Amino acid sequence: MRTLKVDFGPRSYPVYIGSDILSASLLSQYTLNNQFVIVTNVTVAALYLPQLLIDLADYQVDVIKLADGESWKTLETVSEIMDQLMLKRYDRQTTLIALGGGVVGDITGFVASCYRRGIHFIQIPTTLLAQVDASIGGKTGVNHALGKNMIGTFYQPNCVISDLKWLDTLPDREYFSGLAEIIKYGLIGDSEFYQWLKEHIKPLVNREKSILLEAIYKSCQYKSSVVALDECDKEVREILNFGHTIGHAIETTTHYKMFLHGEAVSIGMVLAMDLSIELNQVPSQALLDLKSLLKAANLPTELPINIKKNDLLSTLFQDKKVLKNQLRFVLLTQIGQAMIMPVSESKVDQVLSRYVLH
Amino acid sequence: MRTLKVDFGPRSYPVYIGSDILSASLLSQYTLNNQFVIVTNVTVAALYLPQLLIDLADYQVDVIKLADGESWKTLETVSEIMDQLMLKRYDRQTTLIALGGGVVGDITGFVASCYRRGIHFIQIPTTLLAQVDASIGGKTGVNHALGKNMIGTFYQPNCVISDLKWLDTLPDREYFSGLAEIIKYGLIGDSEFYQWLKEHIKPLVNREKSILLEAIYKSCQYKSSVVALDECDKEVREILNFGHTIGHAIETTTHYKMFLHGEAVSIGMVLAMDLSIELNQVPSQALLDLKSLLKAANLPTELPINIKKNDLLSTLFQDKKVLKNQLRFVLLTQIGQAMIMPVSESKVDQVLSRYVLH
Repeated sequence: MRTLKVDFGPRSYPVYIGSDILSASLLSQYTLNNQFVIVTNVTVAALYLPQLLIDLADYQVDVIKLADGESWKTLETVSEIMDQLMLKRYDRQTTLIALGGGVVGDITGFVASCYRRGIHFIQIPTTLLAQVDASIGGKTGVNHALGKNMIGTFYQPNCVISDLKWLDTLPDREYFSGLAEIIKYGLIGDSEFYQWLKEHIKPLVNREKSILLEAIYKSCQYKSSVVALDECDKEVREILNFGHTIGHAIETTTHYKMFLHGEAVSIGMVLAMDLSIELNQVPSQALLDLKSLLKAANLPTELPINIKKNDLLSTLFQDKKVLKNQLRFVLLTQIGQAMIMPVSESKVDQVLSRYVLH
Repeated sequence: MRTLKVDFGPRSYPVYIGSDILSASLLSQYTLNNQFVIVTNVTVAALYLPQLLIDLADYQVDVIKLADGESWKTLETVSEIMDQLMLKRYDRQTTLIALGGGVVGDITGFVASCYRRGIHFIQIPTTLLAQVDASIGGKTGVNHALGKNMIGTFYQPNCVISDLKWLDTLPDREYFSGLAEIIKYGLIGDSEFYQWLKEHIKPLVNREKSILLEAIYKSCQYKSSVVALDECDKEVREILNFGHTIGHAIETTTHYKMFLHGEAVSIGMVLAMDLSIELNQVPSQALLDLKSLLKAANLPTELPINIKKNDLLSTLFQDKKVLKNQLRFVLLTQIGQAMIMPVSESKVDQVLSRYVLH
């Protein structure tokens, strides 16, 4: 087991990473009164809950099961969880456990931040994407009908337990989607790690535990270092959005039905790399390298043929980084170094033209 | 105008106190984009909104009017406010203004803490109670059907503007209710201030501006100093609950219909003083002094005759300070000094018996 500290001063917390590390004795460090309330979804519950309940037999444990999927990430679901906690008279000493992917973690973190003005909570991310991204940094929240993650808080967990054992049963597409975010960290923050990823992509794709552990550890370490500088997402954190500006536009244009998040980010990173070559003298070989790495990770690198350039462009103008109608992108200045910069519409148009038919 | 700083490190903020101090130039320091969204209720809006809108003619201002009353302090109201903010596409640079009493301030603060994971907000408390209590310290939230203030956050405003002009139109009972909290601050934290209150209770009751300004300033100063030590209400803040343990029990037993909050606290302080005399060798003269001060402030000092001792006692055991079924009260050790301490049920029973018929 490896341990990382996420540094938020008095609210710092550990991230535990390893195989088969989840245990009652680890969890017991984070209860004030021997009570846990596990929030999970029906899919994760069917796979993993029975064993966890056996492990926690000596504690008072309640389970709140949510329906599976992003469409349940709403204020109504939050309200229903609050009702259950209130009905069972859970007090301020209660510890919530978020057992699931990003959706479960975001909802549970939000409930933990608001129930009786804040209770303890533990993140147990069960997807690769949640382990390397959503579980670290304290962003909580739910969607509004008019926008994703529009209602939420910044609230740090008391610990994160990233157990690799959950990843064995993760469907391939979801697993590869997580690799996209790992590759992103190499690109924006650590050229040596990027080189290492290129050399180890095969065992990574094959889910070899020791290599996977290293990749998750490095990713969490990098993300922790960024969020610690910028808890409330004012500026520094923006560089974590490499590939996400175009990625989000792809998700929106395809109504979140064609791609998983990491897949859309994969294509977004290709286009952002192309822009980086255009504007920042990044060598053009970098684009070929990235594409071959993403392909090796079974990730898409091309836009689907039915996407129209103008639809993408108009969606890009709704991005929250847009300032005074000026598009802004996270671009690389070299491998391992990123910055946010304004890009003219004509330059974006020019690069998009290489990827769309019309 | 007098200014106090509430010290929360990088999230410190000023409290402005004075007569006719609210102005566009003061508010303008707290907008990032010349937009304000005023959240208020229909009663306050009818009295004060027209002038405020004239003052803010040079800014883009929207108004969200809530129904008046504690029964609207719910997650549903929060959801409706979120809908309006989203529909009008307010971004993270928006500043909310809470114009009203404690209910408006609590709801607006909660919305500000959750909308897009946190936006700026300004507290403009329009009742004496909100000026000396709810507007300072960052407690936000709404009620749940099963408990008051059960859903909320700790989130500090960017400034508090306590303008005495609103108090001119405040109904007598609400005004006197605010005086109860002011008297509490003297009792628990500042014997000189308590002495000063005894000497100036007549002009205070008559709402004389210069005396009132001093009383509000001293109260805010004391409350600020306590909350700065204990932002998240772990321990130190508990002493602010002097008179509130029994006060809450009185409110619950009478279904929030017989007394305003400050009135219930007034009676609660009398009983807490009696316990302090019993347990802490506070001179018995202090009880007579307090009763005569509260009476001069037109506040009640006796329990209504239809309250039963056992109803009060069983409600007291639901107090959140109860630990392992042991009642705990904030009691005085002398005038100007308070501490939290366990009290046996028989001692509470004995003191209650002096105030109830059955």
